[in-house]
Amino acid sequence: MHYPEPLSKLIDSFMKLPGIGPKTAARLAFHVLAMKEDTVLEFAKALVDVKRHIHYCTICGHITDTDPCYICKDERRDRTTICVVQDPKDVIAMERMKEYNGLYHVLHGAISPMEGIGPEDIKIAELLTRLQDETVQEVILATDPNIEGEATAMYISRLLKPTGIKVTRIAHGLPVGGDLEYADEVTLSKALEGRREL
Amino acid sequence: MHYPEPLSKLIDSFMKLPGIGPKTAARLAFHVLAMKEDTVLEFAKALVDVKRHIHYCTICGHITDTDPCYICKDERRDRTTICVVQDPKDVIAMERMKEYNGLYHVLHGAISPMEGIGPEDIKIAELLTRLQDETVQEVILATDPNIEGEATAMYISRLLKPTGIKVTRIAHGLPVGGDLEYADEVTLSKALEGRREL
Repeated sequence: MHYPEPLSKLIDSFMKLPGIGPKTAARLAFHVLAMKEDTVLEFAKALVDVKRHIHYCTICGHITDTDPCYICKDERRDRTTICVVQDPKDVIAMERMKEYNGLYHVLHGAISPMEGIGPEDIKIAELLTRLQDETVQEVILATDPNIEGEATAMYISRLLKPTGIKVTRIAHGLPVGGDLEYADEVTLSKALEGRREL
Repeated sequence: MHYPEPLSKLIDSFMKLPGIGPKTAARLAFHVLAMKEDTVLEFAKALVDVKRHIHYCTICGHITDTDPCYICKDERRDRTTICVVQDPKDVIAMERMKEYNGLYHVLHGAISPMEGIGPEDIKIAELLTRLQDETVQEVILATDPNIEGEATAMYISRLLKPTGIKVTRIAHGLPVGGDLEYADEVTLSKALEGRREL
C-alpha cells in the first residue's frame, strides 16, 4: 500500500475522468488534501447536485435543472424555428454566439451504422412529434460536419420533405481566422460550392 | 447563462484544481453528467473522506488515516534509521522503491530565504525531539537535490554534528536510463565526485 485508503479511493475516482491518468490523479488528490475543507465540501456537493438536479428537458432534450428548460420556457424566443443538434454541448455553443433566437432539438447522437446507431436510437421521433402542431416553419439541421452528422441531416431532411416545412443545413466553408493554404480539399470544395455574391 | 446552475458550479469546482482550465473543466463536468449515479456519489464521498480522515502522523508527519501512520506503527521496520524528506509524496516515492526499511521524517518544506521560510517554519524541531531517545543511529537526508533541499540538508547536518549521530546525504549522479551526453555540468561533476570503485 502506497497511499492511505481515503487518498487512494480519491485517486481512483479522479482516474475515472477522461484524460486523467494515475500521475495526474495523484497530483489532483494531493491538491484536494491541501484545499480548504469548505471548498472540498462544495466540490462534493456540486458533484452530487449535478447528478441529482440535472436532467434532460422533456421538450427539446437539452440539459436543464428546470422542466421545460430556460430556452423552451422563454416566451421571447422565436417558436417558428427549431435548430437540430446532436448534443447539449452544441446548444451551449450556439447560445454562446448570442445570435440565434429560435428553439432547439437535441438528438443525443447521430446515425452511425458503424456503431450500430440507427434513426430509432436518437430523438428523431420526438422531433416529428414537435413538428405536428404546425407552428414550426423552419428546421435548421446543425448536426456535426462529419459523416455521421451529414448522414443524420440527410435522413431528417428526407423525412421532413413531405411535411412542406423548410429544412436548411448550416453552411460548410472555411473557418473564420483560418488559413486557405491549410484548408483540406473537402472543406475548400464546400466553401467554393457555397460561395455567395457580394 | 450558458450552463444550468448545478453544472456551472461543478465546472467552477473543477477549475480550482491545478492545470484545469474552463474547457477541460466543462469536459469533465459533462463526463460526470454521463457517469452512473453510484460512481459520482463514490467520488463525492472520496472527496469528503480525504478531507475528514487524512491528517499528518504525529510522529513522522506523513499523511495517514491512522495515528501513528502504518510506517511508524510497523514493528518490523528498522527504528535505528530515519530518512528525512520534504514532502509526504517523497515518502510514497521512497516506499515505491521497496528497499528502504527504516522510518521517515517529513519536514513539510525546505529552508528557503527567498520565500521567507526559515528552519523554524519546517519540522526540524520535531526531528530533534525524535532523536533524543537515542535509538536512532543514522539520519539519511533525502531532501530535494536543488538549492533549498541542499541548504536544508546542510543546516540539519550541522545541527546534528554535536549529537554524534551518523548523518548521510543521498547520492547525486546520473539518473539511471539517462544519457551522459545530455547531463548538465553540475550533475556530471557530482557524478564524477561520487564515483565508486568496482
